Amino acid sequence: MKGKGKTMSILYGGDYNPEQWPQSSWQSDWDKLKLADVNSATINVFSWSLLEQTEDEFDFSQLDRIVRLLEKNNIKIVMATATGAIPFWMTKKYPDINRVDTNGHRQIGGKRENACPNSKSFQRLAAQLVEKIAKRYSNVKNITHWHISNEYNGYCYCDNCAREFRRWLKKEYDNDLEKINCAWNTNFWSHTYRQWDEIMPPMRLGDTFSNGKSVLSGLDLAYRRFQSDSLLNNFKMERDIIRKYDNRPITTNLMGSQKDLDYFKWAKEMDVVSWDNYPSFDTPASYTAMQHDLMRGLKGKPFMLMEQTPSQQNWQPFNSLKFPNQMRMLSYQAMAHGAETIQFFQLKQSRNGSEKFHSAMISHSDSTKTRVFKELKQLGEELYNLPDEIKLSKISSKVAIIFDWNSYWGLEDCMGPTTNLNYVNGIHDYYKAFYNKKISIDMISKETDFKKYKIVIAPNMYINSESLTQRIEDFVNEGGIFVTDYFSGISDKNDNVYLGGYPGLLKNVLGLKYDETDALPFETQHTLENDSQKIGNGSLVCDLIQPQTAQSLAHYGTEVFYSNYSALTRNHFGQGYAYYSGTRLNDKAMDYFLTDILKQAGLKADSSKNDVEVMVRQNDDTKFVFIINTDSEVKKIDNPYPGSLDLLSQKVISKQIVLQGYDVRILRIQKS
Amino acid sequence: MKGKGKTMSILYGGDYNPEQWPQSSWQSDWDKLKLADVNSATINVFSWSLLEQTEDEFDFSQLDRIVRLLEKNNIKIVMATATGAIPFWMTKKYPDINRVDTNGHRQIGGKRENACPNSKSFQRLAAQLVEKIAKRYSNVKNITHWHISNEYNGYCYCDNCAREFRRWLKKEYDNDLEKINCAWNTNFWSHTYRQWDEIMPPMRLGDTFSNGKSVLSGLDLAYRRFQSDSLLNNFKMERDIIRKYDNRPITTNLMGSQKDLDYFKWAKEMDVVSWDNYPSFDTPASYTAMQHDLMRGLKGKPFMLMEQTPSQQNWQPFNSLKFPNQMRMLSYQAMAHGAETIQFFQLKQSRNGSEKFHSAMISHSDSTKTRVFKELKQLGEELYNLPDEIKLSKISSKVAIIFDWNSYWGLEDCMGPTTNLNYVNGIHDYYKAFYNKKISIDMISKETDFKKYKIVIAPNMYINSESLTQRIEDFVNEGGIFVTDYFSGISDKNDNVYLGGYPGLLKNVLGLKYDETDALPFETQHTLENDSQKIGNGSLVCDLIQPQTAQSLAHYGTEVFYSNYSALTRNHFGQGYAYYSGTRLNDKAMDYFLTDILKQAGLKADSSKNDVEVMVRQNDDTKFVFIINTDSEVKKIDNPYPGSLDLLSQKVISKQIVLQGYDVRILRIQKS
Amino acid sequence: MKGKGKTMSILYGGDYNPEQWPQSSWQSDWDKLKLADVNSATINVFSWSLLEQTEDEFDFSQLDRIVRLLEKNNIKIVMATATGAIPFWMTKKYPDINRVDTNGHRQIGGKRENACPNSKSFQRLAAQLVEKIAKRYSNVKNITHWHISNEYNGYCYCDNCAREFRRWLKKEYDNDLEKINCAWNTNFWSHTYRQWDEIMPPMRLGDTFSNGKSVLSGLDLAYRRFQSDSLLNNFKMERDIIRKYDNRPITTNLMGSQKDLDYFKWAKEMDVVSWDNYPSFDTPASYTAMQHDLMRGLKGKPFMLMEQTPSQQNWQPFNSLKFPNQMRMLSYQAMAHGAETIQFFQLKQSRNGSEKFHSAMISHSDSTKTRVFKELKQLGEELYNLPDEIKLSKISSKVAIIFDWNSYWGLEDCMGPTTNLNYVNGIHDYYKAFYNKKISIDMISKETDFKKYKIVIAPNMYINSESLTQRIEDFVNEGGIFVTDYFSGISDKNDNVYLGGYPGLLKNVLGLKYDETDALPFETQHTLENDSQKIGNGSLVCDLIQPQTAQSLAHYGTEVFYSNYSALTRNHFGQGYAYYSGTRLNDKAMDYFLTDILKQAGLKADSSKNDVEVMVRQNDDTKFVFIINTDSEVKKIDNPYPGSLDLLSQKVISKQIVLQGYDVRILRIQKS
Repeated sequence: MKGKGKTMSILYGGDYNPEQWPQSSWQSDWDKLKLADVNSATINVFSWSLLEQTEDEFDFSQLDRIVRLLEKNNIKIVMATATGAIPFWMTKKYPDINRVDTNGHRQIGGKRENACPNSKSFQRLAAQLVEKIAKRYSNVKNITHWHISNEYNGYCYCDNCAREFRRWLKKEYDNDLEKINCAWNTNFWSHTYRQWDEIMPPMRLGDTFSNGKSVLSGLDLAYRRFQSDSLLNNFKMERDIIRKYDNRPITTNLMGSQKDLDYFKWAKEMDVVSWDNYPSFDTPASYTAMQHDLMRGLKGKPFMLMEQTPSQQNWQPFNSLKFPNQMRMLSYQAMAHGAETIQFFQLKQSRNGSEKFHSAMISHSDSTKTRVFKELKQLGEELYNLPDEIKLSKISSKVAIIFDWNSYWGLEDCMGPTTNLNYVNGIHDYYKAFYNKKISIDMISKETDFKKYKIVIAPNMYINSESLTQRIEDFVNEGGIFVTDYFSGISDKNDNVYLGGYPGLLKNVLGLKYDETDALPFETQHTLENDSQKIGNGSLVCDLIQPQTAQSLAHYGTEVFYSNYSALTRNHFGQGYAYYSGTRLNDKAMDYFLTDILKQAGLKADSSKNDVEVMVRQNDDTKFVFIINTDSEVKKIDNPYPGSLDLLSQKVISKQIVLQGYDVRILRIQKS
Repeated sequence: MKGKGKTMSILYGGDYNPEQWPQSSWQSDWDKLKLADVNSATINVFSWSLLEQTEDEFDFSQLDRIVRLLEKNNIKIVMATATGAIPFWMTKKYPDINRVDTNGHRQIGGKRENACPNSKSFQRLAAQLVEKIAKRYSNVKNITHWHISNEYNGYCYCDNCAREFRRWLKKEYDNDLEKINCAWNTNFWSHTYRQWDEIMPPMRLGDTFSNGKSVLSGLDLAYRRFQSDSLLNNFKMERDIIRKYDNRPITTNLMGSQKDLDYFKWAKEMDVVSWDNYPSFDTPASYTAMQHDLMRGLKGKPFMLMEQTPSQQNWQPFNSLKFPNQMRMLSYQAMAHGAETIQFFQLKQSRNGSEKFHSAMISHSDSTKTRVFKELKQLGEELYNLPDEIKLSKISSKVAIIFDWNSYWGLEDCMGPTTNLNYVNGIHDYYKAFYNKKISIDMISKETDFKKYKIVIAPNMYINSESLTQRIEDFVNEGGIFVTDYFSGISDKNDNVYLGGYPGLLKNVLGLKYDETDALPFETQHTLENDSQKIGNGSLVCDLIQPQTAQSLAHYGTEVFYSNYSALTRNHFGQGYAYYSGTRLNDKAMDYFLTDILKQAGLKADSSKNDVEVMVRQNDDTKFVFIINTDSEVKKIDNPYPGSLDLLSQKVISKQIVLQGYDVRILRIQKS
Repeated sequence: MKGKGKTMSILYGGDYNPEQWPQSSWQSDWDKLKLADVNSATINVFSWSLLEQTEDEFDFSQLDRIVRLLEKNNIKIVMATATGAIPFWMTKKYPDINRVDTNGHRQIGGKRENACPNSKSFQRLAAQLVEKIAKRYSNVKNITHWHISNEYNGYCYCDNCAREFRRWLKKEYDNDLEKINCAWNTNFWSHTYRQWDEIMPPMRLGDTFSNGKSVLSGLDLAYRRFQSDSLLNNFKMERDIIRKYDNRPITTNLMGSQKDLDYFKWAKEMDVVSWDNYPSFDTPASYTAMQHDLMRGLKGKPFMLMEQTPSQQNWQPFNSLKFPNQMRMLSYQAMAHGAETIQFFQLKQSRNGSEKFHSAMISHSDSTKTRVFKELKQLGEELYNLPDEIKLSKISSKVAIIFDWNSYWGLEDCMGPTTNLNYVNGIHDYYKAFYNKKISIDMISKETDFKKYKIVIAPNMYINSESLTQRIEDFVNEGGIFVTDYFSGISDKNDNVYLGGYPGLLKNVLGLKYDETDALPFETQHTLENDSQKIGNGSLVCDLIQPQTAQSLAHYGTEVFYSNYSALTRNHFGQGYAYYSGTRLNDKAMDYFLTDILKQAGLKADSSKNDVEVMVRQNDDTKFVFIINTDSEVKKIDNPYPGSLDLLSQKVISKQIVLQGYDVRILRIQKS
């Protein structure tokens, strides 16, 4: 049953590549898609070779026809700039466009997202193309967003990049080579630079070991920042051209917690964040939730779910089918965490090319009778009927987790003490613990104002600074609760270790110090105890904590020689508390730790162990409570709002909520 | 006891490299080898650097002496052309002869079988050498076969190959670049070609991912066909030169189910198929049997067992000794499946070089008293006494399995839904099931006339065509039984997926369709059920089959959400039946499936579970029944032909046959 | 309590890199280090970029200041030559200095120890630098040793090296290419050389397979010898320059049983052996002991422990903390095996660079109150008080194990029969067995005079010669006991297999032969039996031994077909015995084997199973008995010398010795 006279405000659709099909079939696609209430299409993502068939000869006729097709069908358009993949004529004519890999090999063209960001040829040709597209289509009313390039990723190590890197360094280091020598401790292993042109990218052929880690981690960090900036410059170049002609929002599709690009820096340049959500068959629901919250956190605003798949991916080792209702569940999970669109890759499944086994709205069967299409149809109808207010509602969290790409790089690229350090897993340990207690999280950068939060958590925050330390101290002093753990606060932004005992500048607010960190091989776990009670296990590393003003919440078990050292601490600092964990906590230990943290924060947790996700979006007068069964088992929970209306079933729900596998409720609660 | 006045018709011998030894030792080799009734030697395989010591300076004196040695000892000669390994002076003088790998690295000489097939230098120099050899030795009476190059394998990615590839493509695609753009769906990821020279081989540096799979699978398939053809052209060039001088059969030694070369295409150009059988310590007997049948199937004729090892290989991870009688068993297994020669690598074990630990007839001990030599001696005597009729006898099968290199490539090189697809294992699943029931199999190409068979099985037949579909439908319509399974019929020869529901054009004959294929991670298995009975397990992938006219023989168990879909079906089509399995069957499920298939085919199976292989070769009036114990345990079976003569022991065998470990009987049965 | 008026004779200190720190902090380092009785510093290891900032512009002012600092603090100096890492200006200006890897890639600078040893540029620039250093600092009294370069390792495959390799070969093979063709059996696979410049290094691009093994193992062995010699030439060049100015001992720090360099050849050129001991968290104590004995054995003299770490490494997968007292234990273990210095990497932990998480005497905490510093302080005080006689005492062994780099290379680089061959593990099997029986071992080269020993063991001695065979026979003939095992005696120095049955020339002394060696897959074990008793297990490979004059001590179990062959033998030869094991023995079988060997040798073993290491150093009148608990459990043993003085606790020890985890006693026994 469809609401009457209503306009659907949520973009529902996805990538559309009609250039892969005969024009005669185009309208029949839309006859099908409109059955599922699809209202948008992302086009022109990979069309450069069609738009510019040889240099400077442009042909927009097909794109014009595609735009007219969509206009005719009343479909909104996300217009891409087509610069995500480079035509072969171009890689052949301008070899400098092809990236050079860390082994020094110039690529020869093919694949995608592999233009050297510092290639002048690429910049010139991309700018020219985008100028023409922006000019030509800025008057198309149906366009809702501009979509620049596609899934920016990867680094280049060519000579062009090396030259630009040196320019970038001159700016960062005041044109003073000695500052670099000092910041990176280049006297180590006789690495002192005498001329700027001695600085090379960190390559396997050069200063990077076969494990991918570099002798000079300062160089490694700088090159990561530089390459992230270089690609961002590509984005900004295109954005600025479009902006000359059009004021509609400009985005590029991001990829969650990927490592290459510092998305917090990117998000400042984007009008709206969009991202592509591709969980594997064994990705925990909390991990996907965390990714959404990270994407929301980039701008602290709702985001576009630019891509997900109706059922299978094609590029993972095992591309399992989504269960019945799982795609719907994932769509509402995205919405619960801030998605304002539900878009897919792709509307019509390719017949050939490496993504041909990636599922799509219209599958190879070309049928609207498939299991998957039926689910898409149901979802489309539901989205059509959902009130616009949801899209405008906000998520309000008392707890924030700091995600910091510099710490990500520094932690994973350092040599020692263990090769098992994994930044995103370190973040997820805390995220999951709160998620399981149904406490919503904001993922924030180091620059975010902490004072909005009751609790700020900084797992594995390897890179620190004086100003950040001051802000943390101020936050705690004024009553905030700060939580951090092993390998936090170790180094400055050049990876110079803070001296005088770990964790460097954080010693003061944490009220502790330690001199040593043990590395636990493989899956070894050590027990954690307090008052002779085992409170859980630690793994990965163990800091040998010496509390100063802090109180010990747990120490290591007697099976290790450092059982007289603390593993968990709490420090009363000013009006607040600073917590520290010196090891990777298992679920039990994390629960113990969090119980204390939540108590001090005065936050209540829903400790029912029911594997049901609960998220609240709200505006001034209404709460939308998403209740999501993230797996295939039936779940029964007490309704936190008995008598409220479920917007999906349009039924009033009494005391108990029974959720079938992957089922969802969206309760509408009028604020009193 | 040796038969009197008889000439041994079976070639028994192998590779002989006297150039690695002082001439003074040559005759003593033959004094030993003749004790084992060795009657043939394969020579000149790797002698180019001796025959042509610098360009255009030829010296055949040593080869002349080797030929005279063999003539003097009355030894038959398989004469090789010496082009399988390139002299260093040549790789140095003509660098274009060295292959370029997928990372773009030009090799520098060394190893073997690595000439670029499209190098004009190589072609010219090889042609010149072969001309001289053919001319010089065509009058040698003892030559029985010509042996071109050695174990052709591998691809080259050099610029020469790229140029030839474009010529090859022009021919295949009517000189029309747009046909390629269309066939390969190059609008995907902006891969549209505008000029022929934009087409590059699928390389890691270019359009191939680090997992070895290419963005454009049409390009990947075409390059595989092209490289297979390029090497075949090398073979044909040498063959045609020899043919000018000599009419004796010409072969090259193949390597079973290797992936690189389309042997069905090759076999058409070969006078006789020969191959090298190197099972590992853990290769199932059925797998080796399948390889023999594939080699027999290439031409539908007996083949030469050109190489096997008396005991150990040297290049596998674990090169175990062969058990007592295992070498003899493997020799008769080869003969049972069509081998007309029993040849070894090699007659005398090298002292140095990477194969020095590969066993040989004359080992490092230089003794005829070794365990292995004694077994070779016994085998030689037995072969000497076997009647010639065996060599002329044929194998007659009611069941055929299609082996198709294009499907092999397409299946394993596609992206998704799982990385575990393995074409040869898929073939072996069916082969093994029939083998265990003692039903002999012909391995055939797609082009073979199906009507000779009662049952035709096409496992994992990924690549299909309209004409093939028609032939399958005709076959079934006229009473044949066709069996196929998951990932069959998906694409055309350019890997364009057939639309309208899987399995494309095969929907009609199979009477089913499916829209989805689940990928099962790791070792996951799902139960298969019929009438509430568990009939076995499926793994790898699960097609969600919707029978149309077909009857379901099994559906998935209730532990999966698709338990209402079929897993196994049978379709009555015309006079015959078409069967389909949507998943990889375990032994129990395969047995269930086959029981029905055999029943409909009216074929009887020997369901005794005794791990004894039974193969029948026959001519007009006689059957030779090979009864082979393929492992080390004693086996007792009922004699299918009580009172028949065992040609090996020359004893009449009564009701029961007791086989010691690896023992063999060859029963001679007079047809009535 | 510190001894009075005493000068500490043992160097206690380590690598010192003050150039990484502001000069203002230097003296405070020594204020700390002297608390721990540190008396030496190794300096100038990686300072080239500071000493020569552009070509030919030298600045020794900072090194002068460092020397003065150390003089002022009365610290002894190990002066390095700074050639272990190359300045960037140099790798840029002289690209030929950068090594080319086995894939043909020229490196671009960075890391360390990667100069091409045959680069004339490197040789010239290094010579010039060392000349200046030697000249300038030869008058510094505090220098005790010269330390050339650092941890020489790795090979280069550049054209320079190829040219020098050919010169090296001409010398080795009498300028006769035919000798090489013959020695390497180059007629194999048409590898015959016609011109010297056809000989290329064994590279992945050329004659080396992807598993790293080469077609011509003669080439492989020669290249290894050549590269080892090339780096040794670099060492000798620097040594000879220093010697012109200074007569104090010259060394370079070695790395135990590394594979690249033939240290027995190196040691002849070194005044004193020094090495760097970095056991992993799971390295057996016996393995470390073996490494020390190998380093002692290189010259048959005490050695310097040039580097160890106070606690953690940074470059292993898991860099665990050392347990309390473990560093002290490892220090005394080194001393027990012949160390005359106890030195560390490094005195002060780096703030940045890839080794920043490698522990040091002064840690990032900059404190002398840490657990680790306290242990260092205790150790320093103990070392200060130890009598000088220990340093001068010697180790006297009745048992020797031959370690042979040529066999190491030949064994691990051969193709077949199994990929699991591991030379050092093969050596350790025997070492461990004696170690556990508290029988000390000398690690010797093939050239050592065997007659000093009662037992000589040659595990996996793949490469043999006529002269060595004669010396072995003489040794046994005169009453010695020779023990060897599988894969020994197979080949000559060019890897030509000795013919006529394995183990070639050793057949005579061993009184056995065998024709076959089985390879056991994965972890398979076969039982070994004697007189129907199971005496243990064999694994890896099984030689099928046919005793001739030898007596069988065990045969294979009946689960294998070769149970009638021997696995273990003893041959009475002249006045002595030659033992052979045809398989890798497990502990039980090794114990059985050794019991017989020791009985015939008339050696007593301490068979108490207490995991306590016992080593004796002695001089004419005194024995120093080191009793070392190598793990963390308390151990109780009977005191072999009741009433003796423990030099560490200065207590007299009665009948029982109770050792806490990692505790050590050094008993001083006056010889009667």
